[in-house]
Amino acid sequence: MHTIAVDAMGGDFGPQPIVEGVVLALKKSKQKFNVLLVGKSSEIAYKIPKKFQKFIEIIECDDVFSMNESATDALKRKESTIYKAIELVREGRAEAVVSAGHSGATMSLATLRIGRVKGVSRPAIATLMPTATGGRSLVLDVGANVDCKSEHLFEFGIMGHAYAKDVLGVENPRIGMLSNGEEKSKGTEITKEAHELLKVHPSFIGNVEGSDIFNDSVDVVVCDGFVGNILLKTSEGVASSISKLIKMNIKRSPSALTGALLMRRVFKLLKKQIDYAEYGGAPLIGVKDCTIICHGKSNKIAIKNAIFQAVSFIETDINKDIEESLVKYRSN
Amino acid sequence: MHTIAVDAMGGDFGPQPIVEGVVLALKKSKQKFNVLLVGKSSEIAYKIPKKFQKFIEIIECDDVFSMNESATDALKRKESTIYKAIELVREGRAEAVVSAGHSGATMSLATLRIGRVKGVSRPAIATLMPTATGGRSLVLDVGANVDCKSEHLFEFGIMGHAYAKDVLGVENPRIGMLSNGEEKSKGTEITKEAHELLKVHPSFIGNVEGSDIFNDSVDVVVCDGFVGNILLKTSEGVASSISKLIKMNIKRSPSALTGALLMRRVFKLLKKQIDYAEYGGAPLIGVKDCTIICHGKSNKIAIKNAIFQAVSFIETDINKDIEESLVKYRSN
Repeated sequence: MHTIAVDAMGGDFGPQPIVEGVVLALKKSKQKFNVLLVGKSSEIAYKIPKKFQKFIEIIECDDVFSMNESATDALKRKESTIYKAIELVREGRAEAVVSAGHSGATMSLATLRIGRVKGVSRPAIATLMPTATGGRSLVLDVGANVDCKSEHLFEFGIMGHAYAKDVLGVENPRIGMLSNGEEKSKGTEITKEAHELLKVHPSFIGNVEGSDIFNDSVDVVVCDGFVGNILLKTSEGVASSISKLIKMNIKRSPSALTGALLMRRVFKLLKKQIDYAEYGGAPLIGVKDCTIICHGKSNKIAIKNAIFQAVSFIETDINKDIEESLVKYRSN
Repeated sequence: MHTIAVDAMGGDFGPQPIVEGVVLALKKSKQKFNVLLVGKSSEIAYKIPKKFQKFIEIIECDDVFSMNESATDALKRKESTIYKAIELVREGRAEAVVSAGHSGATMSLATLRIGRVKGVSRPAIATLMPTATGGRSLVLDVGANVDCKSEHLFEFGIMGHAYAKDVLGVENPRIGMLSNGEEKSKGTEITKEAHELLKVHPSFIGNVEGSDIFNDSVDVVVCDGFVGNILLKTSEGVASSISKLIKMNIKRSPSALTGALLMRRVFKLLKKQIDYAEYGGAPLIGVKDCTIICHGKSNKIAIKNAIFQAVSFIETDINKDIEESLVKYRSN
């Protein structure tokens, strides 16, 4: 039986979607895990249906690390829900933590309090992107590793490969270095160096371009956190922009409106295919235990899926795989 | 009367769409310009309808700089169509050059043979992106300036502002620094330095995120050519991916297919709104004359629009504006 610590208070919408997500996960899980729910019991307890109470223990805590605070202050806030949730993992009371709170705080607390996998200099946040055939690719880092050295990008490649293989179950995941062209000569000084470092890995396929993320030609896309954040937000911007343009154009024509009604199920399916909530949260890879970082605006579906991600993660030997692969493929 | 030099042979599809685009532009222009068409007359002349022949002079040339060659070899290929087209501008026989050939070669030849505007260290390629309300924003650099210093990003901001104001006619265009968060503290060491340099410009609004490109909150988005290329290709990937997912889902249901037929005009309008061809080519900004770089796969519409872009460009004082603004806003 696994135990997952969940920060019940950190999300943008308070404890409601978090508790509902936990209950939804328990409903579907056939009792594979227990939850340590960190938050204010007066706001949480009454939301838990009786039959699930035995799987959930509330860890009393009412200080929330707010989204406006600076991640650098997180270490001092020992009474906050995110700090306490991470301590539960550090103390061995839980195997994983799921949080929709301040992602910078979660990342730095997990890195500093739980500690890094041997050989990892910077843990990375990975995110799944949908492809045009309904598949997916893993992009990392999309987190706070802004100014990266080639060595960090090399590590992201190794960690992404391990996550794709061990947790997502992709056979021989292909690693690509995100660049401004497929040719080896393309890239920044740093990505070109990282390209050389990753070349020793049998699954490295060389440079890939932004469009390759969506065409099933690569499984693990390596970039620094600056580029990763921009590509993530750009993708969200394009998708939301297309959806707004369709809605705006539909309003101008009654026949198009009828058409849109007939296509309702297609749009619903499309939304499901490109909706981040369906993918749950983003794993922080390279930390000794499992940390899943959810979007602040996560709904109950996203939280449910994040909990399942955490369960898949801890049922694998991913961290051992990362440690061994780093030794095996790192240049001297 | 303006004169535009056009590389007739450099595109992926040979002279056909180029010549058709030139004719289309002449048809719509009410004789505002002449064209010097650089290419092999035996492949070009018969495609020009008689009534337009007086506006087009063919400059005989049959060596094409191929897409597989390295831009660094372009200077040696003095008999190539792109070299000759750029020489026509350098010699003052034409005021602008339009090319769908090798973009790196075009960029380096224009920079080296025509020369840079005073104060510009690196010319940049700018591209227009559609926004959710049918507006547009200008992103630069999307070209070959991969490893940039803060000073280069500062110049891109000034050049983009001049293009948006003078050529696109945007009143008080807002300049934003593309970053991984809106806060001033976000960014790489280099974007943070560039942020400080641009602060003196009254139109600088600070950091913007990837999603802001599409929500009308900024007019000129500054980034290096590595990030610019990735965001461009990512946007194309998302748009094409959504279109494929819609098509795939439609096929599974007869009612959705009927719906799609009723929505045909909406999809057509959407395609027009997000189609790069509607925007023509990408201006190379910071070179003494006007250079418009078109997509290798440009159709006749894209070529027509690129020619109109060139005409708008040369009818303004953009290069004087850039030169003066660089002096005015550059820190000592």
